[in-house]
Amino acid sequence: MGLFMSSNQVIKALKKGLGSSKVFYSQEYLLTYAYDATGSEYAVPPDVVVFPQGEEDVAAVLAVARRYKVPVTPRGAGVGYSGGSIPVRGGIALVFTKMNRILQVDEDNLLAVVEPGVVTHDLQQEVEKRGLFYPVDPASLKTSTIGGNVAENAGGPRCFKYGVTANYVLALEAYLITGEKVVSGSYVIKDVAGYNLKSLLVGSEGTLAVITRITLKLLPRPQCRILARLDFDSLSRGTRFVHRVIRGNLGPSVLEFMDQSAITAVCQYLELPLEPEIKASFLVEIDGNPLDVKERKERLLSMVADEGVITWQMAENELDQDKLWHLRRNISPAIARLRPRKINEDIVVPISKIPDAVSHITELARQSDILVSLFGHIGDGNIHTNLMVDPEDKDELARADVLLEKIFRYVVQIKGSITGEHGVGLTKQDYLPLQFKHGEVELFRRIKKAFDPDNLLNPGKMYAHRGD
Amino acid sequence: MGLFMSSNQVIKALKKGLGSSKVFYSQEYLLTYAYDATGSEYAVPPDVVVFPQGEEDVAAVLAVARRYKVPVTPRGAGVGYSGGSIPVRGGIALVFTKMNRILQVDEDNLLAVVEPGVVTHDLQQEVEKRGLFYPVDPASLKTSTIGGNVAENAGGPRCFKYGVTANYVLALEAYLITGEKVVSGSYVIKDVAGYNLKSLLVGSEGTLAVITRITLKLLPRPQCRILARLDFDSLSRGTRFVHRVIRGNLGPSVLEFMDQSAITAVCQYLELPLEPEIKASFLVEIDGNPLDVKERKERLLSMVADEGVITWQMAENELDQDKLWHLRRNISPAIARLRPRKINEDIVVPISKIPDAVSHITELARQSDILVSLFGHIGDGNIHTNLMVDPEDKDELARADVLLEKIFRYVVQIKGSITGEHGVGLTKQDYLPLQFKHGEVELFRRIKKAFDPDNLLNPGKMYAHRGD
Repeated sequence: MGLFMSSNQVIKALKKGLGSSKVFYSQEYLLTYAYDATGSEYAVPPDVVVFPQGEEDVAAVLAVARRYKVPVTPRGAGVGYSGGSIPVRGGIALVFTKMNRILQVDEDNLLAVVEPGVVTHDLQQEVEKRGLFYPVDPASLKTSTIGGNVAENAGGPRCFKYGVTANYVLALEAYLITGEKVVSGSYVIKDVAGYNLKSLLVGSEGTLAVITRITLKLLPRPQCRILARLDFDSLSRGTRFVHRVIRGNLGPSVLEFMDQSAITAVCQYLELPLEPEIKASFLVEIDGNPLDVKERKERLLSMVADEGVITWQMAENELDQDKLWHLRRNISPAIARLRPRKINEDIVVPISKIPDAVSHITELARQSDILVSLFGHIGDGNIHTNLMVDPEDKDELARADVLLEKIFRYVVQIKGSITGEHGVGLTKQDYLPLQFKHGEVELFRRIKKAFDPDNLLNPGKMYAHRGD
Repeated sequence: MGLFMSSNQVIKALKKGLGSSKVFYSQEYLLTYAYDATGSEYAVPPDVVVFPQGEEDVAAVLAVARRYKVPVTPRGAGVGYSGGSIPVRGGIALVFTKMNRILQVDEDNLLAVVEPGVVTHDLQQEVEKRGLFYPVDPASLKTSTIGGNVAENAGGPRCFKYGVTANYVLALEAYLITGEKVVSGSYVIKDVAGYNLKSLLVGSEGTLAVITRITLKLLPRPQCRILARLDFDSLSRGTRFVHRVIRGNLGPSVLEFMDQSAITAVCQYLELPLEPEIKASFLVEIDGNPLDVKERKERLLSMVADEGVITWQMAENELDQDKLWHLRRNISPAIARLRPRKINEDIVVPISKIPDAVSHITELARQSDILVSLFGHIGDGNIHTNLMVDPEDKDELARADVLLEKIFRYVVQIKGSITGEHGVGLTKQDYLPLQFKHGEVELFRRIKKAFDPDNLLNPGKMYAHRGD
């Protein structure tokens, strides 16, 4: 074990800098922190695992890394889908799960100050107690950390109305591998002093700096919320409906869809009945002040009557809404049963292209003889594209690879993105040049050098070639 | 005239690259493009003025600049308040006012694609015709360009609810001085592929790249809007009122305030009566669906009855609303009459600190014997802080300088920002280190070098020392 000749020296220096209670290098630790949610195919163990408990610990780790030229890979809960937190060059896994204090919830200024290891859902519960709201809701919110959310610029269903993580980051404190601390942003939503470092750090996948403190904007909590499930006999009819909802100022907070294969799989999995003519199923959430929600609900229902919805359900209380969300949340486990492995992509297409994109991808999948299941956030065009394969079937894997590249090329061509939530990390780095065809990747490398001249922070990710 | 020995060669090369109809160097052009809204104190003429009409013109200009090592300063309408578009090192003024086409308004995907020279208000009118909405409303919107708005990350009154320019930039196309084109972003609101170049370019004041095309997110147009003026006998009572409005889910789109000196000046200027006990005046706008606006208006009025508002007016139609905005918009000319020169700052403080900040600044001003007038965006803490001076009075100017530094130090100490809308440019570069005390300015320089190794793009701005 140990990619570095100097492992022992590094461990000794870390223990000296942080105290031995925060430094671990037994097999079980190295194995545990070799993984994220991409599974065993991408796993690489670090040489040592460190749990910082404050910014001074982070500064000490970076000083050791700098001195011994050892890679450092920061991570939160490790529930990412792109391998972003895997220490592919070994070195130090810098795990933030114990640096998890909510330092301040400022009701007067509608903001929270947190350490990176705070679990997203814990923050949400804490602020909701005080009548406030942190809307960003990645599927993994009960385990994912705010630091991980910031590093990947996490989204979720509510981001259609409320925006992604980047829209809530007021300020960041971070340490550079070169030793300097940087602070970007303030307690205010308008701040144009200097370059916008914080927006560059959000979504930079831990490759530029190590974030030690995050200030997040909060909103007043919406007082009321309804959730409808609407079933259609075609996806394009459903998409037209969604467009009318948006243009009609119904202000939905969530617009989710499941294609026929997803809705079929989840109904089988949960042993629920499903009308055979249903080809697509949608969830529409509306939140706000009670009277306003009531008025928009009535307009939604009149549109339902107009637009040939096959079946629908309206959930007005939390219990009924949880049942509908239960359906949505069980798509992943349901389709996971279809084949041994799920290649989980998160392409984004302009919303007007969704029906075309779904038909096109379904047809490409048919031609490649690969089972594909599509669901996701129709309001913002973010389609979770799941290629279901058997890793033992090398021919199937090769066909899936070819299909994936075709899908990414198509997405870029219609001005979408190869990733809306998961990030590039390891799994999408081969496809990054499809989206960035001009001088961008070269510029990414120059920016990286400005922050991290020796390529020690989460090396081998995003714009790096696999062999770099 | 001409800071560069090679001026004639440069002009010849520009004419060859672009055609002579786009290249100007007569005195009247050089004088015109020496200025922005900061006035004559900061004016510096360029050596040549170029009006590109497409990205190929921009690429040609940058090639000439690169070859002859001549500075290039991009500019829009030149209505900025920080000297950001002044060509302080001479060279080429790259004026975008003729590259002003609205290339696309995509109603299906709620976006617009524009050239940088499009006037903000022209875009707003064009999209509103189609039931859409571009909410960013800098005071200069009838002359300012979208390119300038992006370069400075412009805000405005509606940004309290709707966010600043950065929140609407879906994609940017830009040219680097090194010759490469870069494209960042897409037609979708969720895109986490690669570093977030577009967010770094927004607000970079033309120092990193020259933007040639901008894709902006649009919203459905709100159907209804009301505007109230509320007068209080103290600013802190007004601020408490505003806090109740925010926390009560009244969802205001605008929250503006004027202190006693501002409201007094504007009422005198417009020859309007003013009750002597009025110490602060507020504007509250609520927009949305008609029934919802009606419900929130009723709640606002019940709060007005509770909270000791001295006088109030409710404007429900556009004409009456224009009258109230007329009052707000005339503050600047009204206070400009108080003294020959207005030093126009745009500090931001956390909203809970506004009453303290206003008292503190007023007291500092009294001690310095400088007339100060305060107004601005109370919802986001952005206080337009106007120091009224006579430039002939050197002692007064010196006292104003000392006062200004005290104000900036105070603002930074309470976690605000030295600039919320205007940018750093020339006028605030001496104060930038007050806000960035760690490794940030050094990092700004390294980032600059990654984009512009020879310091040719808008040199001498933001983090540059005056003598750099």
